[in-house]
Amino acid sequence: MTNYCWCVRYRLRTLRFMKKVILGFDPGLAILGFGAIECQINDKTQEQETVSLIDFGVIKTPAKTELGKRLCIIYDDLNQLLTHIKPDLAIVEKLFFYRMGNTIAVAQAKGVLLLVLAQHQIPLVEFTPGQVKQALTGYGNADKYQVQQAVARELNLTEIPKPDDAADALAVALTAWFDPDIMFQYELSH
Amino acid sequence: MTNYCWCVRYRLRTLRFMKKVILGFDPGLAILGFGAIECQINDKTQEQETVSLIDFGVIKTPAKTELGKRLCIIYDDLNQLLTHIKPDLAIVEKLFFYRMGNTIAVAQAKGVLLLVLAQHQIPLVEFTPGQVKQALTGYGNADKYQVQQAVARELNLTEIPKPDDAADALAVALTAWFDPDIMFQYELSH
Repeated sequence: MTNYCWCVRYRLRTLRFMKKVILGFDPGLAILGFGAIECQINDKTQEQETVSLIDFGVIKTPAKTELGKRLCIIYDDLNQLLTHIKPDLAIVEKLFFYRMGNTIAVAQAKGVLLLVLAQHQIPLVEFTPGQVKQALTGYGNADKYQVQQAVARELNLTEIPKPDDAADALAVALTAWFDPDIMFQYELSH
Repeated sequence: MTNYCWCVRYRLRTLRFMKKVILGFDPGLAILGFGAIECQINDKTQEQETVSLIDFGVIKTPAKTELGKRLCIIYDDLNQLLTHIKPDLAIVEKLFFYRMGNTIAVAQAKGVLLLVLAQHQIPLVEFTPGQVKQALTGYGNADKYQVQQAVARELNLTEIPKPDDAADALAVALTAWFDPDIMFQYELSH
């Protein structure tokens, strides 16, 4: 009987609060930023409860190395990262032609990122830079520093995460956190 | 003694003629063309002797499927293809912004292609479309049909290989065949 009560209480608690791990990416060939957050959502009211930082960092590839080898480094490191973090949802920034010089290199690296996410069967959502700025600052034309300040504030960090690519990846992950539709859409599909 | 003589004769023959398998690619997300040729080169004179067709075809991915899953199909099919063909050298067409609409999608698929080639440790050379046209027709602004006719002529085929993506991939592979420097450079590095 005691055990049964404990089970009911435990079940009620897990029903009320749903936890999701969101992994954001800022794709790049030389530096690929990532940032993981854990979100707690009230299952009854479908409202966001708390969000906390799990990890952030970058995958770097040496500039003077052949392109194929650099893509292999990204592939291997991403495999390790996904095995370690086990995200429920991945968020990637949408790619546009605003950085003409290296768009093809970034798109090739992003192709490898999307491949690894699909191989691990992790659902993917893409946001435009404007959507990220709007979600974090309420202003679609906010500058980089305002977005990074919002990242530190939302995650209760005393400093802005470094390097910029990791802070940008956390901003992308937090954009999903601010959108309850996305959080519940990917709960249902799991 | 007879065996020894046979060995010497065999060794002389293999020393004189070097065989190389070249695999050309026309990268794309919906259709990725490939074409494999076998080249025989005189090791003493460093001149091209004969070239013949091994295989050609396309890897197709369904349009209404998620991008990640399409990249997984490309990854798996390329792995099978490379295990089957075992090329000494891969040739890929260089990507430019002349097809703005789908350049990002093609670059993402090409990222997966370059990854798989590097994972199989196959050396890679890239040619511009102008270099391919120049090598096959002697004219850098030749049209698609002139290039495809040259492919059929060089490989002694009665018909132009279909679809176009496979013929283009064979044209890319033949461009390396016309360049003895590339053939010998990649012989030395093996």
